[in-house]
Order: sequence, then C-alpha cells, then structure tokens
Amino acid sequence: MTPDRSLSRRRLLGAAGAGALAVGAAGVGGFAYGHETDEAPPTGVDKATYPFHGPHQAGITTPAQDRLHFASFDVTTDSREELVALLRTWTAAAREMTAGTPVGDGAPTSYDAPPTDTGEALGLSASGLTLTFGFGPTLFEKDGQDRFGLRDRRPAALRELPHFPADNLDPARSNGDLCIQACAHDPQVAVHAIRNLARMGFGTVAMRWAQLGFGRTSSTSTRQATARNLLGFKDGTANLKAEDPDNVEKFVWVQEDDDAAASWLAGGSYLVARRINMHIEPWDRTSLREQETLVGRNRDEGAPLSGGTEFTQPDFDLQGRDGPLIAVDAHVRLAHPTQNKGVKMLRRGYNFTDGSTALGRLDAGLFFIAFVRDPVEQYIPMQTRLSSQDALMEYLQHTGSGLFAVPPGVGSKSGFVGETLFA
Amino acid sequence: MTPDRSLSRRRLLGAAGAGALAVGAAGVGGFAYGHETDEAPPTGVDKATYPFHGPHQAGITTPAQDRLHFASFDVTTDSREELVALLRTWTAAAREMTAGTPVGDGAPTSYDAPPTDTGEALGLSASGLTLTFGFGPTLFEKDGQDRFGLRDRRPAALRELPHFPADNLDPARSNGDLCIQACAHDPQVAVHAIRNLARMGFGTVAMRWAQLGFGRTSSTSTRQATARNLLGFKDGTANLKAEDPDNVEKFVWVQEDDDAAASWLAGGSYLVARRINMHIEPWDRTSLREQETLVGRNRDEGAPLSGGTEFTQPDFDLQGRDGPLIAVDAHVRLAHPTQNKGVKMLRRGYNFTDGSTALGRLDAGLFFIAFVRDPVEQYIPMQTRLSSQDALMEYLQHTGSGLFAVPPGVGSKSGFVGETLFA
Repeated sequence: MTPDRSLSRRRLLGAAGAGALAVGAAGVGGFAYGHETDEAPPTGVDKATYPFHGPHQAGITTPAQDRLHFASFDVTTDSREELVALLRTWTAAAREMTAGTPVGDGAPTSYDAPPTDTGEALGLSASGLTLTFGFGPTLFEKDGQDRFGLRDRRPAALRELPHFPADNLDPARSNGDLCIQACAHDPQVAVHAIRNLARMGFGTVAMRWAQLGFGRTSSTSTRQATARNLLGFKDGTANLKAEDPDNVEKFVWVQEDDDAAASWLAGGSYLVARRINMHIEPWDRTSLREQETLVGRNRDEGAPLSGGTEFTQPDFDLQGRDGPLIAVDAHVRLAHPTQNKGVKMLRRGYNFTDGSTALGRLDAGLFFIAFVRDPVEQYIPMQTRLSSQDALMEYLQHTGSGLFAVPPGVGSKSGFVGETLFA
Repeated sequence: MTPDRSLSRRRLLGAAGAGALAVGAAGVGGFAYGHETDEAPPTGVDKATYPFHGPHQAGITTPAQDRLHFASFDVTTDSREELVALLRTWTAAAREMTAGTPVGDGAPTSYDAPPTDTGEALGLSASGLTLTFGFGPTLFEKDGQDRFGLRDRRPAALRELPHFPADNLDPARSNGDLCIQACAHDPQVAVHAIRNLARMGFGTVAMRWAQLGFGRTSSTSTRQATARNLLGFKDGTANLKAEDPDNVEKFVWVQEDDDAAASWLAGGSYLVARRINMHIEPWDRTSLREQETLVGRNRDEGAPLSGGTEFTQPDFDLQGRDGPLIAVDAHVRLAHPTQNKGVKMLRRGYNFTDGSTALGRLDAGLFFIAFVRDPVEQYIPMQTRLSSQDALMEYLQHTGSGLFAVPPGVGSKSGFVGETLFA
C-alpha cells in the first residue's frame, strides 16, 4: 500500500468499461447499467451528462430525470465569508459530480484524512445528475436581522408563501435559507450528491429537511411521455415544455427589468416547493366516475372529459346532459392556463412515499416543484383558487412548503453559484 | 363514454410499444424506459418478467433488482377464512402485477365502482417486479392466543429475534404478522404493488411499517457487479450467489426434515430484516485508513487488506508490521463464512435514506435482508458476534427488526401463497 494515491472514479469507470466490452460483444454495448454488468445499458439514460456551466442552472428545462433528492438547509454561521466560501466549494463539487467524477477527483487522497468523496457512487455514471441551488427569503432577512448584508437585494417576490386554505404545513418540512434540488436517473447518485454537499457544509449549514421522490410527474420535454401521479392519473399534460422557448423565456426566466433591487436574479427563476399528501385510502375507494369527474380527464389516456385524446385542448364550455362535461370545480379547469389569465409554469414534481403514518395510512403524495418567473403572478393566484375551489382538494393536504430564488447559471470555472448576488 | 369498459395495461403497453418502434428504428428497440419515449430502453432491465409460479417464491435467488418497497402488516381480523381469502386475493393480484398487467385485468371495470387497479403503473412494464410473502411469529401465536389455529404448525426457529447488544429497536419499525417484499427496477412499480396489496387487505390487515430502498447492496448473481453501501464500500462480495446451487440448497431452502412441526415450510426459507442506521456524519470525518481498517477491505476495489483483488479470499492469518493485516475486529473477518463455521446466507439488502432526523443528521443506512434455511444457526450467532465485537458497530445502530417464515412457491394457478400452511 502506498501512503497517498488518487481515487479516481474515472479510473473505476474505465475498469467497468472494460467489463462492459463483453456485454458489448453480446450486442448491447456502452456503459454498465447501475450495478449490473449483464443487463443492457440504457445508453440514452445513464450515460446522460448535462453541462454544469451556462446562462441558466441545469435541472430546470433539463428533461425531467426519474429521481429526486431535495434538501433544504439553514445557515448556521454569521459570516458572509464562510457562506461565500461554501458556495464556492459547492460549485466545484457540483461541477465534478454532475460530470460523473468524484468530489476532489485529481487531488491525491491521504490515507490519514477522510476521503474527499464518500464513495457510494464510485463505479456509477453521472446518471443525468443535475444540481440546482436556491436561496430562501430568510437568507436575506431573518427575525429583522440583515444577516449577510443582503437585505437590500432581496427580490420583492421572495417572501414566505401565504397561508392557503386547508394548508397543514409542518414547519420541519418547510422553508429554509438554501435549497438544493438533485435530480438523476439513479437515486444512489442523487443521494450521494446531497450527502456530499451536506458534508462539506458542516459548520456552515445544517440540513433542515429533505425529500426523496421518484416517477417524475411532470415531463419538461415534448419527447417525454406524460407520467402518472399516485392518484393513477397522467399529470402534467399541459405543462410548459423546453421546446417552447418563447414561453420558457416569458414564464420561467427572470428578466433584467423585473425587479430593480434584484437584477442579480436575471437569468434565474423562482422555485416553488409544496409537499402535497394524498389521502390514498379514501381515493382508492372512490368510483372511477367520481375520480374522473374530480380530475376532469379520463384515467386511461388522460383525455379531457370534453373529448379527444391526451393533448386535445379541453373545451370548458361543452355541455353534457347535466351541465358542462368538465365540471366547474374539476382540477383540470381550475389549473388550466386558459383559466388563469394564460399564465403557465414549468412544473417538475415527483411522487413520494415515505412509509406509513401512525394510523397505518400511506404517507404518500406529490412533491410539487414549479419554476416560475414570478410566484406572485404565476403561483399564488392559482393556488388560492385551487385550495378553495378544486374538488380534488378533498383528497389532498399540503404538508410542506418553500419558496426559493434560483440564481442564474455559473458562466465559467472561475464563477460560483450566487456570484451575481454576492458581487 | 360507455358505462363499462376494460382498463387494460396490456392495451396501454401496446400503444407504448407502437411509440417505441421509432426508438427501435434508431437502433435500440424494445420497451420504452420508464416514462421516457425518447431515451434508450434498457431491454435487459425493464423488460424483465419473472415467473410467479414455481417451487420457490421469486425475489430470493432472482438477480437483485435495484429498488425495494418492503411492508409489514398486522392482521386485524380474527377469522381464519378471511385471512385465507386475502392470501388468495393477494396471490391472484401478485400473479397479475408481476406479469406487468394491472390488478383485475380482463374484468370489466364499472364507472360506478372504484377501479380494480389504482393506475399509477399503467404504461409501465413489469420492471422485473417480484413479490415475496412471509409469515411472522405472531401469526401463529400472539399474547398466548392461537389466533388462527396455526400454533402447532409454528416452526421452532420462528421466534422474535433476541435482543442483540447495541440494538435500539423502534417497535413501530419492527416485527409484524405478515410481510411483503416488493423488488423492481422502477420504484413506482414496487410502490404500486404494495399499495394495491394493502388496499385489498383493508379490513383484514393494516400496514404496520414499510421501508423503501435503493441501490441493492448484495448481488445475488455472479453476473451482477458488487454494489456499494452508504459507507462507500462494496457490500456483499462474499454473498451466496444463485449460481452456487448446492450451497443455495444447503443454506437457503428449508428441507423436508428440518422441522417436523413445519413440513409445510419445505421449499421455503426465513427472511431476516434489520434496519441498520449508519452514523453517516462521523463516518465521513474518519480517515480512509481507519475506514479500511474497520471494514478490512480497501475502498477502491473492495480487495481484502491481506492483498489481491475483490474476489481474492481474505487471508486472516497474514501478518503485517503491527499484527494481522486484517484486524481481529474487522468487519470482514467477523462476518466471513470461514469465521462462522462455514455458514453462508443469501443477503438481499438495500440502501435507504429517509430524510433527516430532528438533529439534522441523515436518517440513512442499510436495510438488511437475508434469506436463510435456519436463522438460529445462520443469523443469530453471527449477529451476536458482530454486535459485540465488530469495530464497525461504532458507526451502526439497528433500529428495526423482523423475522418471517417464507412459504414455498405457489405451484399452480389454483394454489395460493401459504397453501401448505393452511391445508
């Protein structure tokens, strides 16, 4: 054994690649899938590596990956310098991990120091990992304190979301000074990323809450099929897609002139997070007719009850024998852009199951994530309407909430997440 | 809209198959991967369908799938007939879901009744789903009561596991009358299966606890690479593999003559479940040298510290300057078959991350599952030794526990899970 050496994930991947040659000879080729060497490599999936640098952060218009690990942090230091240092450290680590290399790759690891990378993703590919960082309102001001000299730069729209009817928020699952959204096709890769970032933050931040998700419920690309939520229905049919750049520009990215105090946020966005528990058991005892009436679409293919197929525009005026075919309190009607002044948002939610409650009920639902240019215009009015009028609310309860300003992307290797804010 | 119709997952899959043809033309062919239609289908993964019928239950020697949803149930009825009826219902549903078809497929669904299948797996393939059922000690006798006339048939080895040193078991995460292990490559498929089985059990059973897992940590086939646990080390190098049928017969399957009272269990096994929390944060601050010393293998490739590569047999006698190269209290030594009278077991564990604790620590670790012919000979002595002598225990805490008798497989369509017990 040598006292120092380099632990290279690339090197390990190289070895895996050699093993994969035999697989390639069998006609499937490419990367090893997860831990399997004998099974076909999903080349379009696990090989995916998304660039870390760019005008916008990745993980927003990126085609929604299959798994999520979302974490919220409280900053525990009073030092602006320590906070900035952590953001620089996080930036470097995020660049490495999203490229599929371990944290600190290239630097020799001493046997007498903790490893720079915790190791559980060694041998796994990037798996489409993206890391998206956000800043909560309390980073700018908390209990009247201007903690880091940022108060004057707080965007006007960055305030704790209002209380909506029927909210039952758990403070231990809400808000936070910072957030990180990790998305990947392999949960082990997403968990590894959050764990390593949390580890680096020791002494500067503490994890406040976290959420795992699977089965993305909102496709963000027209090339993705619409996935289903745990009500069993397709979710996100009318979602804003990356292939609609004009509307992405209009509804997702903050523009230069949006907020004079927060020009640093131009090219960024706002992230709305809502943990929405579903009352699974009563839902499962509801008739299919009732379910479809509440949703306003049929379950089989997701077509609006006014007719057509999944992507047919709903006709909210079309009358049946007993009134409009899409009920006045149907979810699809109240949530549809045409009923919300044409406002759209880019949703990027995930299903979750966190075991069972003390009553033996499934603790499950939808972890709603949306990216919007302005939450005051795009989210709050719609959620106000949904929470008071949507018939589906009988089966839903919001148990967690957060609003974060998502800074623009990091342009170059010398930059860091939030550089425009701290400049 | 017609008042009745058949909701066919096969039909939906047929439609997805048509969409996949374009993918096939691009050279990758086969099923759509998860929700993606534009990404390559991992033909060896998601297309996998394991037969439900056979002499043994699936999900034991089946190559370990990537995701787990494990659930434990309490029986809430006093009626043996109701219990048997549920086992028959579960059997039929398990046969359908493991084939990739929805529950109740083929039967027309009335609009005025709840759907027979909850729907969230519509359009997804079987994803290698297996469902493995087990019976806990309390099914046979609880508080001195012979609840279902099964007391005389209880296997002698089926008793609550003893308290091991350093156990800190949460009763809300331990034991149960019945268990179901759902394994699949897509978590949505595993969650869908448990949810539907729980739903059918309403009024007969109540979910006691559940555990989600990912990143299988013990390969059960020589064709699978060894995966890593959340300590960052390869886990399960020396695991019993399906390609070693003599030892599988010897160490996994209960034999006719093992227990005169429980001949019904022949062809079955015992499932040991242990929720093992890892103290992630202190581990991450430990030097690589210390980590490798505690484990007894190097982290990079999993080779024993006595030298060689991953599958080199450890040399526990080989001396270094300061004593044996593999320390006397190293995990690999205490857990190795050669140090346990040659006893092996078939492990099938998963990593888990359940958010963070009230102290802001990751609630994460290993959900240990092992299948053994006799827990009294194969698990209890080893765990007794590990829990008192293993240096790694400083970083581990057992927080959940369960022991279940796993009946043999269902031989034919007319049979049901547990038929030999209830015959």
